[in-house]
Amino acid sequence: MTSELDLYPADTSAEATLRFIKTARPVDLASWLSRLSVDAAAEHLVEIGPKRRAQAFARLPSDHQASLGAMLPDHVLARIVADMNADDRVDFFNQLTPGAQERLSRHLRPEVRAAIHRLSSYPEECAGAIMTSDYAVLSAGMTAAEAIAALRAQAPGAETIYRSYIVDADHRLTGSVRLHALILAADDTPVEDLVEAAPVSVTPETDQEDVGKMIARYDLLAIPVVGTDGRLMGIVTHDDAVDVMQAEATEDFQKMSHVLPFKQTMRDAGIGILYSKRILWLTLLVFGNLFSGAGIAYFEDVILAYVSLVFFLPLLIDSSGNAGSQSATLMVRALATGDVELKDWSHMILRELAVAAALGATMALVVFPLGAWRGGADVALTIGLTMFVVVLIGSLVGMSLPFLLSCLRLDPATASGPLVTTISDATGVLIYFSIATAVLSL
Amino acid sequence: MTSELDLYPADTSAEATLRFIKTARPVDLASWLSRLSVDAAAEHLVEIGPKRRAQAFARLPSDHQASLGAMLPDHVLARIVADMNADDRVDFFNQLTPGAQERLSRHLRPEVRAAIHRLSSYPEECAGAIMTSDYAVLSAGMTAAEAIAALRAQAPGAETIYRSYIVDADHRLTGSVRLHALILAADDTPVEDLVEAAPVSVTPETDQEDVGKMIARYDLLAIPVVGTDGRLMGIVTHDDAVDVMQAEATEDFQKMSHVLPFKQTMRDAGIGILYSKRILWLTLLVFGNLFSGAGIAYFEDVILAYVSLVFFLPLLIDSSGNAGSQSATLMVRALATGDVELKDWSHMILRELAVAAALGATMALVVFPLGAWRGGADVALTIGLTMFVVVLIGSLVGMSLPFLLSCLRLDPATASGPLVTTISDATGVLIYFSIATAVLSL
Repeated sequence: MTSELDLYPADTSAEATLRFIKTARPVDLASWLSRLSVDAAAEHLVEIGPKRRAQAFARLPSDHQASLGAMLPDHVLARIVADMNADDRVDFFNQLTPGAQERLSRHLRPEVRAAIHRLSSYPEECAGAIMTSDYAVLSAGMTAAEAIAALRAQAPGAETIYRSYIVDADHRLTGSVRLHALILAADDTPVEDLVEAAPVSVTPETDQEDVGKMIARYDLLAIPVVGTDGRLMGIVTHDDAVDVMQAEATEDFQKMSHVLPFKQTMRDAGIGILYSKRILWLTLLVFGNLFSGAGIAYFEDVILAYVSLVFFLPLLIDSSGNAGSQSATLMVRALATGDVELKDWSHMILRELAVAAALGATMALVVFPLGAWRGGADVALTIGLTMFVVVLIGSLVGMSLPFLLSCLRLDPATASGPLVTTISDATGVLIYFSIATAVLSL
Repeated sequence: MTSELDLYPADTSAEATLRFIKTARPVDLASWLSRLSVDAAAEHLVEIGPKRRAQAFARLPSDHQASLGAMLPDHVLARIVADMNADDRVDFFNQLTPGAQERLSRHLRPEVRAAIHRLSSYPEECAGAIMTSDYAVLSAGMTAAEAIAALRAQAPGAETIYRSYIVDADHRLTGSVRLHALILAADDTPVEDLVEAAPVSVTPETDQEDVGKMIARYDLLAIPVVGTDGRLMGIVTHDDAVDVMQAEATEDFQKMSHVLPFKQTMRDAGIGILYSKRILWLTLLVFGNLFSGAGIAYFEDVILAYVSLVFFLPLLIDSSGNAGSQSATLMVRALATGDVELKDWSHMILRELAVAAALGATMALVVFPLGAWRGGADVALTIGLTMFVVVLIGSLVGMSLPFLLSCLRLDPATASGPLVTTISDATGVLIYFSIATAVLSL
């Protein structure tokens, strides 16, 4: 897929390495550096030009940034940090120890220090933490030609000049103008005439997932971040939004499969991280299983009378769990992408009832002959009936829980995966043996 | 999150509706129209200005497009279609019946027809199907001022002028230039001096998921699509990439939870769609369960001798499945995002061995007292040992299958979910009762 790109140096010769360092894109430089030893990475990092070096450094996994940062002389690190985009810079700065922050700060210009201070005051995972202060501003009183001249002056520092923001004397956001529009307009057109009113904006506290959704929904290049007083505080750019949406989807994948979220990539995560993020839910599910175990113990006599019932236990419990996880996953994802909103609840549940009944009936027909073959007509009736009921209940629980958790302002992804499993297991056992007791007249 | 936006008309009065129609963004217009009856939607659609109307129509779910398209007079529909972006237009055109395509074509200008024909020849879900032919081109011989003048002429039709492509006389792509650079340069700077060499590009056959990954990896606004002869054929823009990555993540969620992928949103999917996409794997998993059922039948004597073993059956099978689905999900997602590549396989498996052993040992310690309480020391030893082995095997299977399927060029997401469940169930039963037979000397 990347025929024109050098993802890594062609070979290990000094010449190939140098050519790669001179031509590769920052993200590819970062991939390459992250696979080298810290010593080698530090050595090669200083050979890269200042702008690309800072961009490559910004794209390193955070643990690599930390170890590499500790290796570099303070003034070299300070130069790299000063060249980074404002948002990447804060991410790096925030993970340093107070001592290292102090040492680094001494080598930074006051305005860089101030920018770090301003951005680092916001909690993680919200707009304030991912916004950048490197945006272009214009005032409505300019002409198109003056605006373009002003952009020329701001362009080297701004992350994007394709959309500029119009602020009043108090730095309150009043509109925005596209470079597109400035270019198309005659030189003396007032910027005022080109301004688009009421731009979509977020506050510094807006959850980053919502920021990403808005950028995607409105196909934006950037979204302004505005304080409660209406003042423009920063912008979040489209590339950050893509990263956020990818990260949020990964987090939901982890939560749905009973893994606590973690920030490292799978390649970089250590044994300790993976163990600690996986063991909690595995252990909690053991205790959830005590319910189904207790259910089975309660029906010990039934089992001894009809041992063939045990053959179908994994099948029935799995089917209920599978149907439940289908519903839960579909609903968690639909809520995450905004395809479904809370107010769609009644329509969704009614439709799920119909779908689940159809699924349960089909599954009952499938297992009926299996039951007849292993245990006769009574057993067939028992497992057919049970299958219908457990698929129905599993699906309804799987569909309802994400809604319920959303209403309670809990994350639907975290809790629905494990909860659906535990609930469908325990109810499955009870339903199975209750139906067995009734049908087999035990 | 959207205080400045009107997502829907403020109320149902004609006045509020009109204000909404005049001011709302296309995507919000589309949400609103999709909740109206077809008659009402058709009536309001014609009240929207041409450009926003076309954009709103493009964002309607495809079944709404079809029913609304059928309601509109041919010449009105043709006008909307002509105003749409080239890529959206083809998506709509391709889902019409041949008869409707024929009727619509008669009302389209020849160049629009030609653009549709050119783009519609590519298979779905590849770069050719999502690219647009509305891009800006420049030639290297221009000056910066001439280039800006040329862009002014092209801007109304181009989807983005923020990056223009440099082509030679044969329309072969030789480089690209950012509007940023043109604006910063002196008027008489040759474009040649501003061109960035070797742009990242894809072919029309590149999978759309890879296109999205490249746009995200390199933080691009657009990526050029180039034929085997080096000719520029179109571009894919960043907003399409976000949509693609969202859709691909949703597809992976569906596949991992045993649902066949479907294109409709959860809100719009009908009962028939949901049933048909869910029943296949549910039924197949029943047959997968025959293996575990057969295993249980084989060990009937063991069960009758130690009925307390049955209490722990759901627990052990679930734990194995849970550990396996943790590993499989983490690996499927890491492969999908590109965090892990096939060559990382040996490192991953070794680490998984260590993680799984630690998880298995912890889980064994947790269930040991449960076993002792229910069935004494022998049963405790049996279920502790079994837990260790099934968690280890479940994890290794869960981690290996996505790699193996990727190597075989199959989609890791589709098959690993259900396969991991079936394999861990069947092996779990066999391991459990084999260990029981050995430990309990049956």
